[in-house]
Amino acid sequence: MDTLAMDTIESIGYPVFFEDSLTELARFIERGKYTRFFVLTDDQTGEYCLPVLQPYLGENAQYDLIEVPSGEQNKTIDFCIGIWQMLIDFGADRNSLLINLGGGVITDMGGFAASTYKRGIDFVHVPTTLLSQVDASVGGKTGIDLSSVKNIVGTFAQPQAVFMDHRFLTSLPPRQILSGLAEMLKHGLICDAEYWNELKISDLTKPSAGLVYQSVAIKNQIVLEDPKEKGIRKALNFGHTIGHAVEAYSLEHDGAKHLTHGEAIAIGMICESWLSFKKNGLSEQELNEIVAVLTNLYPQHEIKSSCHADLLQLMQKDKKNNGTQINCTLLNKIGECSIDHICTEEELSDSLHYYASLY
Amino acid sequence: MDTLAMDTIESIGYPVFFEDSLTELARFIERGKYTRFFVLTDDQTGEYCLPVLQPYLGENAQYDLIEVPSGEQNKTIDFCIGIWQMLIDFGADRNSLLINLGGGVITDMGGFAASTYKRGIDFVHVPTTLLSQVDASVGGKTGIDLSSVKNIVGTFAQPQAVFMDHRFLTSLPPRQILSGLAEMLKHGLICDAEYWNELKISDLTKPSAGLVYQSVAIKNQIVLEDPKEKGIRKALNFGHTIGHAVEAYSLEHDGAKHLTHGEAIAIGMICESWLSFKKNGLSEQELNEIVAVLTNLYPQHEIKSSCHADLLQLMQKDKKNNGTQINCTLLNKIGECSIDHICTEEELSDSLHYYASLY
Repeated sequence: MDTLAMDTIESIGYPVFFEDSLTELARFIERGKYTRFFVLTDDQTGEYCLPVLQPYLGENAQYDLIEVPSGEQNKTIDFCIGIWQMLIDFGADRNSLLINLGGGVITDMGGFAASTYKRGIDFVHVPTTLLSQVDASVGGKTGIDLSSVKNIVGTFAQPQAVFMDHRFLTSLPPRQILSGLAEMLKHGLICDAEYWNELKISDLTKPSAGLVYQSVAIKNQIVLEDPKEKGIRKALNFGHTIGHAVEAYSLEHDGAKHLTHGEAIAIGMICESWLSFKKNGLSEQELNEIVAVLTNLYPQHEIKSSCHADLLQLMQKDKKNNGTQINCTLLNKIGECSIDHICTEEELSDSLHYYASLY
Repeated sequence: MDTLAMDTIESIGYPVFFEDSLTELARFIERGKYTRFFVLTDDQTGEYCLPVLQPYLGENAQYDLIEVPSGEQNKTIDFCIGIWQMLIDFGADRNSLLINLGGGVITDMGGFAASTYKRGIDFVHVPTTLLSQVDASVGGKTGIDLSSVKNIVGTFAQPQAVFMDHRFLTSLPPRQILSGLAEMLKHGLICDAEYWNELKISDLTKPSAGLVYQSVAIKNQIVLEDPKEKGIRKALNFGHTIGHAVEAYSLEHDGAKHLTHGEAIAIGMICESWLSFKKNGLSEQELNEIVAVLTNLYPQHEIKSSCHADLLQLMQKDKKNNGTQINCTLLNKIGECSIDHICTEEELSDSLHYYASLY
C-alpha cells in the first residue's frame, strides 16, 4: 500500500495535504490573504519541529510565536486564556492566521482559541504526532478540558487546511507512536476489516505514510457523513466512553506517569470489545483476536476496583451521554459497529474487571 | 405606531416573539425536545424577573438555576468558567436547554457558554433590559470581555428563539432605559430617518413596545443581509469604535460609577457624528441636531486629554480593526451611513475634544 498515491483528501470544506505538504503551506501563505501570522506550538515541538517548518514560512510570513508547555494536562482554559491574551497583546486582527504546529493538545486548543478569538479567525493545522495526524487532522472538533472532563468546552470549527508531513513522525518516541496507533486500529475495527488485517501484519513501530493516509481517509469518510455527530459519527467513539474516563482519571492521579491518550483508548477498546461480545454479537474468536493485538502492543495498566466508582462518574459526565445513561459504541464484528448502546454500571465495571484479568 | 401589529420577527433561522411571548416560551418547552432545563440569570434579575417567568415554565420544566452577580464588569471568562462548571456539576447533557434571563451580560455570556459547552447546547433568550431587547436579541453574537477588551472572545451562535416581554421594562431604572435607548437612536441614525424623527417626538423615558419592535426589526434586517459582519452589518458599529473604548476604560477606572453601555455609545455617536461631519459629508445642521438630542438625554462625562492615549490603544485592540488602523462607520446623513472609514489618531483625539467642548 505504500505505493498508494496520496491524493489530497477533501474534508469538510478544506483540503488535507499529504504530498509536499509544507510546500503547499508555503503556497497557502504566499496567496497573501492574511495580515498577520501566529505559530502556536509547545516547548518540545518548538525545539524539534519548528526548525523543519521555518524554511517554508518564507520571508513574507513574519510570525509571532506563542508557546505553551507540552503535555495533555495543559489543555486547559488557563492556557487557552494565555493564548487569547497573547493574541490581544500581539495585536492580532480578524485577518490573522493561527498556525497550529504540534500534537492534539495544540490542534484542539489552538482550534478552540482561534475559533473564538474575535468570534473566529482562520487557522491551519500542521500535526506533528501520529495521534494528531490520524485523529485531530479531520473532524473539525476543537476543545479543552475542564475539571478533568475531556473536551467539555469546545466548538465545531474547520481549519482552512491541514498539512501532513511524515518527517515529523520519524523522531517520535515509541510511546507517542503507540498513542496514535490506537486510533488507527480503531478505524479498522469500526469499519474496515481489510485495513485491520493490514495493520496486523505491518511493522507498527513505524507506521508507513500509506497506513497513516488510509486511517485519515477512513475517519474523513465517517466525518463527512455526519459532521455534527448526530448519528453515525458516534462510531468513532468506540473505546472512548471507558477510555476517556480512564485517561481523565490517570491525568488527575498519576502525575507525570499518566497514560497517553492511545494507551487509555486501547484499554477502552478492550473493555468495549468485551461489552460487544457480551451484548452485541461480537464472536469470542474476534474478541480474542482484538485482545491479543492490543495486549501485545500496550503494557498493562493497573485499575483497582476501588477506582470504579470514580471512573463511572467520569463516564456519566462525558459529553457523549444523555442524562445519566452511559452510551457506548459497540462492535458486531471486526469492521462493523453500531452506536448508542446503553450500558449499566455493572456491565461497565465488569468490563474493567475483564481487562484486569488479561495480563 | 403603538397600534402596529407586532408579528413574530424571523431572524437567522429563529423566531423573535413579541405577542404573548412567555406563553410561546411555555409552548416551546412543552414540545418536549429537552431532557434538562437551566435558567441563567443575575442576582437582580433573579429577584425581579424570575417570578414573572416562573409560572410559564410549567410543571414539566424542572430547572436548575445558575446565578451570577449583576453588572457589566462580570462578563468575564471567570464567570463563564463558573457557568460551565455548574453545567458539569448539574450533569447537563447535549439535550439540555439554557434559558438566558437577563440583560446583555446574561445573553452574551450565556450564549457563549451554551455554544461551547459540549461543543454547543441549545439556548434561548428572555431579554429583560431595554438594551438586551433591542441589541442582544438578534444578531447571533455571543461574547465575553478579556483584559478590558469588549467581547474579544465569543462565537456566532443563534438561539433557538427569543421571547420579548414589555413588562420587564416597566421596572427598569431610568439609566437602564437610557442605556438601551442609545442603540435605538443608532438604528434610526444609520438607516431610518423616519424612525429617528419618531423617536425625537416620543416620550423616551418610557419607550413604547412599538418603538422597541421597530428597533429590533431594523437591526434584524441588517443582520440578515450580513450575518458574519463581512460588510454592511458594520453599519451597526456606528458609535462603537470610540464608544467601546470609552466603556472599557470606564469599566476599568471608574469602579461602581462606570458608564453604562448606552452612555458610552452616546459619547461614541457624538464623536463619530463629528467625524462624519469632518470626513463624510454629514451637514453641520444634522450634526447639531444629533448632538442636541444626545446631550439633552445623556449627562456629561469627563474625558481628560491625558486619557486619549489609553483610549486610542483600546480602539486599536478593538476586534473591528485590521492591523493597527482604526476603522469607523460614519454617517453621510441622518438615516444613511457608510462603513470602513480609517480615522487617524489625531482625528479621533480631536473628536474627543469636540465632545468635551459641548457641555
